[in-house]
Amino acid sequence: MHVEERKNVSVEAIGIVYSCFPEKFGIPRQAGLAPSATGIVELYHPYNRRELCNGLEGFSHIWIYFLFHKAIDEGWKSTVRPPRLGGIERRGVFATRSPHRPNHLGMSAVELLGMRHIDGKMLLYIGGIDLLDKTPVLDIKPYIPYSDCLPGASASDWVEDPVSHMQIIFTKKAQEFCDRYERKTGRKLSRLICEILLEDPRPASQKEKKQDFGMRLWEVNITWTVSVKQCTVVNCTFI
Amino acid sequence: MHVEERKNVSVEAIGIVYSCFPEKFGIPRQAGLAPSATGIVELYHPYNRRELCNGLEGFSHIWIYFLFHKAIDEGWKSTVRPPRLGGIERRGVFATRSPHRPNHLGMSAVELLGMRHIDGKMLLYIGGIDLLDKTPVLDIKPYIPYSDCLPGASASDWVEDPVSHMQIIFTKKAQEFCDRYERKTGRKLSRLICEILLEDPRPASQKEKKQDFGMRLWEVNITWTVSVKQCTVVNCTFI
Repeated sequence: MHVEERKNVSVEAIGIVYSCFPEKFGIPRQAGLAPSATGIVELYHPYNRRELCNGLEGFSHIWIYFLFHKAIDEGWKSTVRPPRLGGIERRGVFATRSPHRPNHLGMSAVELLGMRHIDGKMLLYIGGIDLLDKTPVLDIKPYIPYSDCLPGASASDWVEDPVSHMQIIFTKKAQEFCDRYERKTGRKLSRLICEILLEDPRPASQKEKKQDFGMRLWEVNITWTVSVKQCTVVNCTFI
Repeated sequence: MHVEERKNVSVEAIGIVYSCFPEKFGIPRQAGLAPSATGIVELYHPYNRRELCNGLEGFSHIWIYFLFHKAIDEGWKSTVRPPRLGGIERRGVFATRSPHRPNHLGMSAVELLGMRHIDGKMLLYIGGIDLLDKTPVLDIKPYIPYSDCLPGASASDWVEDPVSHMQIIFTKKAQEFCDRYERKTGRKLSRLICEILLEDPRPASQKEKKQDFGMRLWEVNITWTVSVKQCTVVNCTFI
């Protein structure tokens, strides 16, 4: 066994994600955890021709390969502290899905809601996403159940998705904002807020304190408070 | 919606795969189809420190991100002819897992059989692979069942893994070679040959003809003939 000459290869964004998540805070830990989280992949020229996606409509889910573009300047780390381990214990970066990894490559299995080729633009509508707005896309592939879904695969306990015991309550003001917003845009804002808060996005270090939190979804500022196992969505306003 | 400035990013091989497949012919269409197909990932400096893999032992399966290095010089295609469609019908490249794709990125979910840190080398032993020997590795991630295994996902009929009706027979000479090889190396050569031939690796264009075929696994040349639904492994020899 001998080490081959190393390869450095230049990769190019083939498209971009427009997502409901304009900032990191609030993004689910993995794809699929918040089914109402939606976005659009716009493919760049010359990858925007309809024929490159012919046949993709036969698949319910696709893989998005992307760059953790906001982590590139921050470099990579040998070990990281997964939030699910309370932000205290360390794991090797290759044993995690941390963005702070060599090459900063990410992939997400997302639902393919639809496709449109319009005004020379090729758009893929996706759901259940965990992607930051303006994420550069490197590739699109079909999700193939027989090779990608491994029901016998086992993982360390700490990566399992725990059952949430969080109760979510909206103030009247917040609920009314969501109702108006949903009628106007067709986006399921209140359901998305619930899906995100059920996963408790607070950093481990702040879970003991009673304090206010804020996040942005699309162009909406959302504020909430947490008390033991109850979240109250206090207010929603336009940014 | 407006198109952001495009990003070109340089990616670097963090390691290399040493695989049972020294050539393309015979490689299963997807990972997992030939469980006895094994290989080793060797991580390069500075990614070869043990701590980068700490915790990975808790996972039964891992994702290997890699480059389709043999396809890079051949470029990419807008549409391809998947072998499963008889090599006649075309599909958009993004609706396939073809290596001839923009950026030439691949990923495989493989079994993690073990890890060793020895003589400054960090080695990951993997099984069920579909990777060419000397494939450059770009990343390693744990397979996380709750987000990666989507039992409800549906795919086009043509990507399903069909039940094989192929019968595999070894000549006495071929079987004796395999027995000796397996005792010496611990590699499951005859089982791997069966797993590959059950999937019928012949190009669609050659399925009508009765002819001899050859492939290489590790350092062994294997020849076989096909007659209707019966494969006969005629001979195995060292390259």
